[in-house]
Amino acid sequence: MASQSEQPHLPLPAGDIGLLTDFYELTMAQSYFAEGMDGEATFSLYVREYPPERGYLVAAGVDDALDCLTALSFNDASVDYLRDTGVFTEEFLEYLRGFRFTGSVRAMPEGSLFFTDEPILEVTAPVIAAQLAETIVINQVQYQSLLATKSARCVMAAEGRPLADFAARRTHGSEASLRMARASYIAGFGATSNVLAARRYGIPPTGTMAHSYITSFDDEAEAFRAYARRFPDRSILLLDTYDTIDAARIAVDVAKDMEANGHRLTGVRLDSGDFDDLSRQVRRILDDAGLDYVRIVASGGLDEYELDRLVQGGAPIDMFGVGTRVGVSADAPYCDMVYKMVCYDGRPVMKLSAGKSSLPGGKQVFRQYDAHGRMAGDVIALEDERHESAEPLLALAMSDGRRILPPSPIDAARQRVADGLAKLPDQYRKLRAPARYPVSVSAGVQRLETQIRGDLSAGRSQGA
Amino acid sequence: MASQSEQPHLPLPAGDIGLLTDFYELTMAQSYFAEGMDGEATFSLYVREYPPERGYLVAAGVDDALDCLTALSFNDASVDYLRDTGVFTEEFLEYLRGFRFTGSVRAMPEGSLFFTDEPILEVTAPVIAAQLAETIVINQVQYQSLLATKSARCVMAAEGRPLADFAARRTHGSEASLRMARASYIAGFGATSNVLAARRYGIPPTGTMAHSYITSFDDEAEAFRAYARRFPDRSILLLDTYDTIDAARIAVDVAKDMEANGHRLTGVRLDSGDFDDLSRQVRRILDDAGLDYVRIVASGGLDEYELDRLVQGGAPIDMFGVGTRVGVSADAPYCDMVYKMVCYDGRPVMKLSAGKSSLPGGKQVFRQYDAHGRMAGDVIALEDERHESAEPLLALAMSDGRRILPPSPIDAARQRVADGLAKLPDQYRKLRAPARYPVSVSAGVQRLETQIRGDLSAGRSQGA
Repeated sequence: MASQSEQPHLPLPAGDIGLLTDFYELTMAQSYFAEGMDGEATFSLYVREYPPERGYLVAAGVDDALDCLTALSFNDASVDYLRDTGVFTEEFLEYLRGFRFTGSVRAMPEGSLFFTDEPILEVTAPVIAAQLAETIVINQVQYQSLLATKSARCVMAAEGRPLADFAARRTHGSEASLRMARASYIAGFGATSNVLAARRYGIPPTGTMAHSYITSFDDEAEAFRAYARRFPDRSILLLDTYDTIDAARIAVDVAKDMEANGHRLTGVRLDSGDFDDLSRQVRRILDDAGLDYVRIVASGGLDEYELDRLVQGGAPIDMFGVGTRVGVSADAPYCDMVYKMVCYDGRPVMKLSAGKSSLPGGKQVFRQYDAHGRMAGDVIALEDERHESAEPLLALAMSDGRRILPPSPIDAARQRVADGLAKLPDQYRKLRAPARYPVSVSAGVQRLETQIRGDLSAGRSQGA
Repeated sequence: MASQSEQPHLPLPAGDIGLLTDFYELTMAQSYFAEGMDGEATFSLYVREYPPERGYLVAAGVDDALDCLTALSFNDASVDYLRDTGVFTEEFLEYLRGFRFTGSVRAMPEGSLFFTDEPILEVTAPVIAAQLAETIVINQVQYQSLLATKSARCVMAAEGRPLADFAARRTHGSEASLRMARASYIAGFGATSNVLAARRYGIPPTGTMAHSYITSFDDEAEAFRAYARRFPDRSILLLDTYDTIDAARIAVDVAKDMEANGHRLTGVRLDSGDFDDLSRQVRRILDDAGLDYVRIVASGGLDEYELDRLVQGGAPIDMFGVGTRVGVSADAPYCDMVYKMVCYDGRPVMKLSAGKSSLPGGKQVFRQYDAHGRMAGDVIALEDERHESAEPLLALAMSDGRRILPPSPIDAARQRVADGLAKLPDQYRKLRAPARYPVSVSAGVQRLETQIRGDLSAGRSQGA
């Protein structure tokens, strides 16, 4: 099956994307329009603080955000609706009717590791366009990056055991379920149960059977046999509908019959109870019957912490189905990702709000490596600074409203996460209380900040 | 503006909905198909355990789930994709190509209060169709109910002060942002900042201004004046870009100039810092200038716990913008909502998995009221039981794949939540450690359960 990841899959009809915005973006835009303020602005997307226990973040949703910007427009229904609010002028509504995003975007590629305060992307555009981009850009990048990060943590905890995304039913809607499948695959999962995601993104689909399948037959053995008959080379039998250990013995009988017909039972699945204890008991039952090739799959309530406990404890589980807790990034369902103006009309700007101040000016992030190729620290610098021996992370992705860099093929993004995690020293990858990865601010940014703070306290004018 | 809530807004193209399912639903379906198992099955959607601190839940997403079932089908891209997996027979693929959901659904109306173990909806359909409905039904109802519940808790905490949904940028995708606006409005919020949601659902749009607006002007006063000039009767000035108290004094000057021109400043917004302290200082500054009509809006990091603290502490805040924490139901981003087979081919069934057993048989939920009209306890009964003095909550919503009951207009759903909360005694509505609302299981269900458990332990056959 060819990957279909190159096709954009907008989360909304293109003509509706313009309205997927906060009302104030439109009132501010009308004010800019009326004041004749069409200066170019640069906005920076970054995370202020790590969610609990996170020492790194994985960028995802960047390509969706860029697809949305490319398509951002206002259809008739939207323009008519805005007119009916009575808040907007005809001139401004006409402007919106013809609106296309004509800005440029520099961005980290999908799957990049990033850290707090580092711009993941920067939009430079006439101020109205840059402002109208805010809501949809944060909306797409924030949660997808959280899901990719949570998934990457699971991959680390599983230490090579394959993981599958089982989250479809518990994500926040169908769009989120598709992006969860994609984000978890990028982070290193091997498969998804979400068939539409598998089709759209070219991810291997996977699945076993549900309790309802078992209960719709007269007994468990009959259900197992019916399934094995239909899928003789890809049957994973669910053991916990009535009693897991009894079911394991029935699975042995079924597997023996399959052997007699030249087939092999692929696996059995545990979905409740004490996975450590049950997996050992079931492994023994299988092994005693000479079925050492039958794999044990566990699912239900898993996250990186539980995976770590099972893997470190030596539970003989070969594969994990990971759902709910990862699909909503349960211990960190949101983070403080913001989109802040850093430059207006050639003038670097910043806000000083308590605990929420921003770094002024358009920027570049430089990544430094040690002699062994391991990540040694990032520098947040001004866009035009040069750091010869370091890797610049933001690349021009969009210019004049058109994609310059094509979207990352999903396998390229997946490789990028794997490479990043391999280069990130252990102390920053720990599941709990990771060390803080060194991110410094260049002398250029610091000088600019000092200068603006001085100007502001002198005259409440934030000009550089 | 007329409400557009009657139009269905499918989260996905109709022909893609069939594949928004877990892969095992399709492999099980193929097995049923091959075995000639076309018996009618009933599945029940319910929540096993309350999320932390919840004493009630608000049903939302039921109408979206029904819209998805009405549209559930497999387009050519989906059928071709399934063929390419090599797992499915041509006969089964042909069946899917012509598939339409022809079952019936009994459901609680949108906005109903419900409790653990109570079916929110029950699907009765040929087993394949009932099974294929699982993923999308849970996917739509679970998170929307969580968002409506979290929002209702905010409404209780705000004690009459208006709330606005500011969550668009931090929900899990655009679909979730639209449903958050809808769920929070149903729960009693007064407005949303999400303009597309406002258009689609007929919710009043609202908004103020962003920090970037302030920083794009030479100084704060100039920004305030430009906005007030454009929106002389709906300006809410953001105070915390540089220093909240300084900005309040500037806002006073602007408001005085507006008065001179026959206009009134609507409000000021606090977005960071200690809201209790700042709101008192800002109120004093405004009142001292004779601007007692200028309202104070607070936003940033709010949830029901923080709203409760501010309201009980007497902070002079007139309106709240509620975003991130409510838009992802941060302290409970998922719950244990499941869809379980309770009847197959006329035979009640149940699963016994540790901590996850289900109640057998198709059901009705009856709500009892005391002499004062307050909710006094629910009874989970068999579908054909009668409880004369109690209110049955599940109504036939869909028959033969067609809607019998039209979707609830959004205002009707909103009224239903308000009525339900008004009738729910205080001890169950508390924000923390609420009492457990009495939900009992009828003698009929209990008899059936005892009988099936006996049959199962006797013969590992779960027939009734």
